Amino acid sequence: MEAYFDNSATTRVLDSVTEIVVRTMTQDYGNAAAKHRKGMEAEQYIRSARAEIAKTLKVADKEILFTSGGSESNNMAVTGTALANQRAGKHIISTAIEHPSVYNPMAFLEEQGFEITFLPVDGEGHISLEELEQAVRPDTILVSVMYVNNEVGAVEPVEEISRVIKKKNPRVLFHVDAIQAYGKFRIYPKRQGIDLLSVSGHKIHGPKGVGFLYIGSGVRIRPLIYGGGQQGGLRAGTENVPGVAGLGVAAREMYQNLEGHVAHLTELKDYLTDRLGELEGVQVNSRKGTGSAPQIVSASFDGVRSEVLLHALEDRGIYVSSGSACSSHHPGVSGTLKGIGLAPRYLDATLRFSFGIFNRKEEIDYCIQVLGELLPVLRKYKRG
Amino acid sequence: MEAYFDNSATTRVLDSVTEIVVRTMTQDYGNAAAKHRKGMEAEQYIRSARAEIAKTLKVADKEILFTSGGSESNNMAVTGTALANQRAGKHIISTAIEHPSVYNPMAFLEEQGFEITFLPVDGEGHISLEELEQAVRPDTILVSVMYVNNEVGAVEPVEEISRVIKKKNPRVLFHVDAIQAYGKFRIYPKRQGIDLLSVSGHKIHGPKGVGFLYIGSGVRIRPLIYGGGQQGGLRAGTENVPGVAGLGVAAREMYQNLEGHVAHLTELKDYLTDRLGELEGVQVNSRKGTGSAPQIVSASFDGVRSEVLLHALEDRGIYVSSGSACSSHHPGVSGTLKGIGLAPRYLDATLRFSFGIFNRKEEIDYCIQVLGELLPVLRKYKRG
Repeated sequence: MEAYFDNSATTRVLDSVTEIVVRTMTQDYGNAAAKHRKGMEAEQYIRSARAEIAKTLKVADKEILFTSGGSESNNMAVTGTALANQRAGKHIISTAIEHPSVYNPMAFLEEQGFEITFLPVDGEGHISLEELEQAVRPDTILVSVMYVNNEVGAVEPVEEISRVIKKKNPRVLFHVDAIQAYGKFRIYPKRQGIDLLSVSGHKIHGPKGVGFLYIGSGVRIRPLIYGGGQQGGLRAGTENVPGVAGLGVAAREMYQNLEGHVAHLTELKDYLTDRLGELEGVQVNSRKGTGSAPQIVSASFDGVRSEVLLHALEDRGIYVSSGSACSSHHPGVSGTLKGIGLAPRYLDATLRFSFGIFNRKEEIDYCIQVLGELLPVLRKYKRG
Repeated sequence: MEAYFDNSATTRVLDSVTEIVVRTMTQDYGNAAAKHRKGMEAEQYIRSARAEIAKTLKVADKEILFTSGGSESNNMAVTGTALANQRAGKHIISTAIEHPSVYNPMAFLEEQGFEITFLPVDGEGHISLEELEQAVRPDTILVSVMYVNNEVGAVEPVEEISRVIKKKNPRVLFHVDAIQAYGKFRIYPKRQGIDLLSVSGHKIHGPKGVGFLYIGSGVRIRPLIYGGGQQGGLRAGTENVPGVAGLGVAAREMYQNLEGHVAHLTELKDYLTDRLGELEGVQVNSRKGTGSAPQIVSASFDGVRSEVLLHALEDRGIYVSSGSACSSHHPGVSGTLKGIGLAPRYLDATLRFSFGIFNRKEEIDYCIQVLGELLPVLRKYKRG
């Protein structure tokens, strides 16, 4: 049996996505900027995808900017707004558990003379609204907080965060990295006070190499990539028609039956969480139920190194992640796991199981059976 | 009959490209940064593509950086080197006929206090080596010149350009936008003195949304997109495995039979050029033979507006471009056509016919027949 439990790293694409990607590579392959019919056809794919996505967020079509993925969206949101608004101030607020594609542009901005405040999180991975309020200053121009943490599935209270920020300084822009949240939650930027929202295609059974950034109308932002004037001059480059069309289809399919998908994922999460409880020396760091991300289970294994367990599971066809794939090139342990105050002995003994719509309950039964066999052996081996 | 003569805007992908894109979306869909087998498999696709591409250029694998396309490659080459080398100077040299994805980052850098010299071109679209030599200064850090002009197919003497630059100031970096040249010419950066080279996938029958930047070892450059440390920290974001794999296949197929493809394209170019000579009031702005790009014919039509002719041709299934698709969102006429000193009455009466490997001679016969019917009618209509 094979069990792919690394869907927060990347997902298998939907058949309907493959179909539209192939069609736009081989038949309707025009350049969306071309003035002839093949160009118009290509542009129509872009326009449809934009409309489908805008509908899921209840925003205007023109507020959706297509990018090459979540990392570009996050970079543009952070660097693009900082450079465009620096006359109003050079102070930015973020958290201790952001993804590197938010954290590292911040480090770049620090070099450019910006000042960044990183808010700590509690044991659940949540920032304190009081600390946030105190951090907002007259020269604050941007607050960037992730919607769902990619390692433990914590959900930040984005609506309350926005209220706190805007009450203290209405000019501050609020960016939300929703890469692990989009397709799992109903997100309405206008109602929730979100000015910018980053999304990636390949986390929602869409293609790799494509994503979008919601940019509320009126938000001042600079491009990262200059050139041929595509997308209103905000993001140059021949539109990735197959990628964008595939992203549109994935977004539509995820949201057409969101409640069904979320119920399925939550069931898998809760079931794995319960079944892990049957095993000795396992601590689950994520939460059951609808208060956290439906697709993520984080668990620590007493006396077993995560990499060793990861490879032992892989040998049995079970694919999981230690920390987040996004930062696996970085040495050292996770910022999130440290951030939530995980016991030091668990920092290097934690796995993330993440689900997609293709997963089935039987795969969890199989995984638990394999863990039941492996854990005693690995622990013995380690002690031996 | 259908005749797609807009291959310099974008191309139909090869069947072998579609095949690998589908496989990496549906079966080998792992995240290349994941530590398990599905991650390794994905990384292997990236590694193979990198090796295939490096081989075509005779460079080291690690000198190939994958990007989201030609525009990102150009932006990174220009902005990334400027920011990384500004202590050595803030002077950059380019030409009057660059693509907007080179020109517009230059405009951004001007705002940041850089000084840019734009060299003019002669009637053939070539810069003067004497003027170049005079322009190089002790504080020059970068020269950026396109290999093949996208509108008239002029080929710049990149090897001589490099020699002139490096003789005067060996520290100057030389960037070449090879987006219309790669897959049409044998390009050897080491031998030709090129430090950075931009390439796009969808111009060579590969996928949209992917490209690469050759960065010679030792070149100081900053990332555009920061994050998870992929590609040695130079370009963050989950690797676009299907795009990169497809690009690798396209590069291999183009170069495996380069001479055959180029002979085919040159034959089409020369044949169309000759046959256009049979029509009244048509001036060809590009050159026949191997001294210019094999895939591009630029022609001006006396007394006919290019957009009118473009749409009339489209009605007969013939797809061409007026100016370059890349700048079609920009109002006003082409910089290149002005740059080569085209008569003002032709600026708005010029079409680009660009070929790919799928084109056939019969399509040209059909096109000439249709032009022969259309031109008298359109001219009459205009005069009437």
